[in-house]
Amino acid sequence: MTFQQKLDAIIEKNNSLLCVGLDPVLEKLPPHLQKIKNPLFTFNKAIIDETADLVCCYKPNSAFYEAFGEQGIGELKKTCDYLRENHPEIPILLDCKRGDIGNTNKGYIQFAFDYLHVDAVTLHPYLGQEAIYSFLDRKEKGIFILCKTSNPGSGEFQNLLIDNNPLYTIVAKHVASEWNTNKNCFLVVGATYPEELQKVREVVGDMTILTPGLGAQGGKVGTLMQAGLNSQKAGLIINSSREILFAGDGKDFAQKAREKAAALRDEVNKWRY
Amino acid sequence: MTFQQKLDAIIEKNNSLLCVGLDPVLEKLPPHLQKIKNPLFTFNKAIIDETADLVCCYKPNSAFYEAFGEQGIGELKKTCDYLRENHPEIPILLDCKRGDIGNTNKGYIQFAFDYLHVDAVTLHPYLGQEAIYSFLDRKEKGIFILCKTSNPGSGEFQNLLIDNNPLYTIVAKHVASEWNTNKNCFLVVGATYPEELQKVREVVGDMTILTPGLGAQGGKVGTLMQAGLNSQKAGLIINSSREILFAGDGKDFAQKAREKAAALRDEVNKWRY
Repeated sequence: MTFQQKLDAIIEKNNSLLCVGLDPVLEKLPPHLQKIKNPLFTFNKAIIDETADLVCCYKPNSAFYEAFGEQGIGELKKTCDYLRENHPEIPILLDCKRGDIGNTNKGYIQFAFDYLHVDAVTLHPYLGQEAIYSFLDRKEKGIFILCKTSNPGSGEFQNLLIDNNPLYTIVAKHVASEWNTNKNCFLVVGATYPEELQKVREVVGDMTILTPGLGAQGGKVGTLMQAGLNSQKAGLIINSSREILFAGDGKDFAQKAREKAAALRDEVNKWRY
Repeated sequence: MTFQQKLDAIIEKNNSLLCVGLDPVLEKLPPHLQKIKNPLFTFNKAIIDETADLVCCYKPNSAFYEAFGEQGIGELKKTCDYLRENHPEIPILLDCKRGDIGNTNKGYIQFAFDYLHVDAVTLHPYLGQEAIYSFLDRKEKGIFILCKTSNPGSGEFQNLLIDNNPLYTIVAKHVASEWNTNKNCFLVVGATYPEELQKVREVVGDMTILTPGLGAQGGKVGTLMQAGLNSQKAGLIINSSREILFAGDGKDFAQKAREKAAALRDEVNKWRY
């Protein structure tokens, strides 16, 4: 099964385009979880248990685990194992923003696909297609290329004009027309840039786009959906992290997260029908 | 002490611009090391013990450790700890090619600077300066930005022309003129591209440049030195990994690595005086 097929199935089953970013921050966890063994995994498990029927994807960002070294990587592994064992139908997208030369990328591939067994990764475009052939060769995996990122300063290079076209649209075009021979390429465009998202949508047709940046970063559901939906009124993976994870900080934090996730899923769905 | 000061001191002490890339590959290790506990660290330790008087820097690439998950991260940590305890005068450059939005980069900073305690990291430029302020704020650390990478296909985006200037020179210019207020920015330019290295040198003045890509990737010492030396006949960190690490595969592998490292250091030094 390809990533897109797995994604389509869960979008239909859960009637959701919502992706929950599993980005635990130790000092933001409910106090009763901060001093236990495996706090990140324990937190994630509670979030997953309460939201698994509301999402189309989980997206752990590796930075939040690497922060704790060996221990953190162990908790990331536990999180991925828990997901695969209990919710094998939900794809896991490892947001690791890697990108090295070909020989070296094999190590990252081993980490993501053979150790964590995730379904997809995010990569930087800067080294070009040739550097990431070993990723692209994994036909059953999703390869998400950074295109227009959600941060306020993302235009410094991404908006530079090449023959009147901003670099991010060139990246989108290369990925859609040249890199995607195995139909396993996708893009990342920040929900904070609806106009740019619309331009990317025009370039890539119906390709699925991951859109981080809702909530804490400032992205709004309405403008995001109007700009980003494809011709099938789909084609978006809409990520939210902090807004859901830290909706509450008491013993009922997971229930609060569920309420927030359900509200966001429903708000998104208003634009789909 | 800044990264540049630490680097200058060891360049003078060891009379060397050579950086050894600590990129162990399990199946390429000498057979007697492949099935022991902590094979990567044990291999690195032997390489370090034989080359510490010949180098100006060690550069572990995190991909080779992440490949083994939690265990691999532990061996990377052991390697960094061993270096700091036994050779505190030699800077450690973590080649991790990271780059996320500001909030998330804090996790990577914690990994590199607070857990591994390395002296420098490599980062992707694609998200712009604003995303990496929290890296740039670490004045005592070296921040190496990918500029023109060593891989054969690096031109796909890096050579695109913006007002007749290739993107990699724009990156070089931004880093040198805008990002470097703390004097802790450096660049990465592949030894496989001497002409491009020369252009970057013209843009950035005497800034130190890391040049991977010698040996297995095809870079040559003579052309590299002619293109890259700064006005002080310095300003380069010349990395070699595979050629040194895997010079031998018997019990004397570390001695063979030493011979190769010494020969490379001496060949480089011919161009410095």
